[in-house]
Amino acid sequence: MTATLTRLSATIEARKSADPDSSWTASLLAKGPEKCAEKFGEEAIEAIIEAVRGDRDRLASEAADVLYHLLVMLAARDVSLDEVMAVLDARHGTSGLAEKAARPKG
Amino acid sequence: MTATLTRLSATIEARKSADPDSSWTASLLAKGPEKCAEKFGEEAIEAIIEAVRGDRDRLASEAADVLYHLLVMLAARDVSLDEVMAVLDARHGTSGLAEKAARPKG
Amino acid sequence: MTATLTRLSATIEARKSADPDSSWTASLLAKGPEKCAEKFGEEAIEAIIEAVRGDRDRLASEAADVLYHLLVMLAARDVSLDEVMAVLDARHGTSGLAEKAARPKG
Amino acid sequence: MTATLTRLSATIEARKSADPDSSWTASLLAKGPEKCAEKFGEEAIEAIIEAVRGDRDRLASEAADVLYHLLVMLAARDVSLDEVMAVLDARHGTSGLAEKAARPKG
Repeated sequence: MTATLTRLSATIEARKSADPDSSWTASLLAKGPEKCAEKFGEEAIEAIIEAVRGDRDRLASEAADVLYHLLVMLAARDVSLDEVMAVLDARHGTSGLAEKAARPKG
Repeated sequence: MTATLTRLSATIEARKSADPDSSWTASLLAKGPEKCAEKFGEEAIEAIIEAVRGDRDRLASEAADVLYHLLVMLAARDVSLDEVMAVLDARHGTSGLAEKAARPKG
Repeated sequence: MTATLTRLSATIEARKSADPDSSWTASLLAKGPEKCAEKFGEEAIEAIIEAVRGDRDRLASEAADVLYHLLVMLAARDVSLDEVMAVLDARHGTSGLAEKAARPKG
Repeated sequence: MTATLTRLSATIEARKSADPDSSWTASLLAKGPEKCAEKFGEEAIEAIIEAVRGDRDRLASEAADVLYHLLVMLAARDVSLDEVMAVLDARHGTSGLAEKAARPKG
């Protein structure tokens, strides 16, 4: 199911070298990392508001926007999804072992 | 690779019924959706700051924290990762077709 | 100089009962507290980005937006600027005494 | 009443050259603009959550934290409160005239 994220990440990567007029993603990437970070931040705020309100459907929708804009922000700084997943694996022991007791932030 | 996220999501789901003293995730979930949203927001801010600063390694690390706390916030409202991925698939045509020209937010 | 804030607060208060079509502030208030909070959040993100980038003029501009949208968000929940200032006075001893050593968050 | 903000701003300015161990404000400023921006962001998130929840007292309390950390973030970049108020005056016509119809962000 999360193959979705891998495919979306690949699509976004391909947009980095595309004409900014060719797609919304290409246009956003062309504006630079600060603009990509700002859009990610806007979606994060909207997800927080829906989480507090408690509307499940709108939260799912906003969470999807968060994921998309997180991937765009990462692409804007040439950080791959694989690198992020490697950090998660190392931190939360999701490579098959039980979750480690570690606080996520150290 | 993103099987990591599926496994992490399952681990977090299992923590919902666990003793709050048994793990950090269980403790966070026991504090309720508002607290989970607040922690997600803190990590989103940190990721934004690293994206603007341009430190790739720290951005990868903060993005991992964002994903973890997004999953916790979703679990606090009983939204599954599958639901979010279904929204992404529908919106970005990542079910195999080319990305649709649609703006992510409509 | 901060009489500016008092006047702006009074102007925003007056917009609460105005026709939503009569001004941008009235239109925003008519959309409810969640929308006002979302706009405040967007401006907060932009101010953070400028603070990290280090552009003084843009930071001053974004900080002005933050203050405006903070006042609108407060008005949307009927919290007065005076109440907020009373909290600041009590917490930071700005009623004339030296700053108390207290952490701002307690 | 908003003389509170002017006094608090002066207090924070004075902390810029103080020993980081002498006060919480001095310690925060010594950590640099990014850390000050991060703390401001955390308080902004908390204020948003209380605005959505609708708890007036907690919103007033969080708004006070937002103002304090906004001033610290501005001080970290040598932006004065007066500069921000001048932007607000120019933008919202609060220098005595009626609010201009202008959208705050242009």
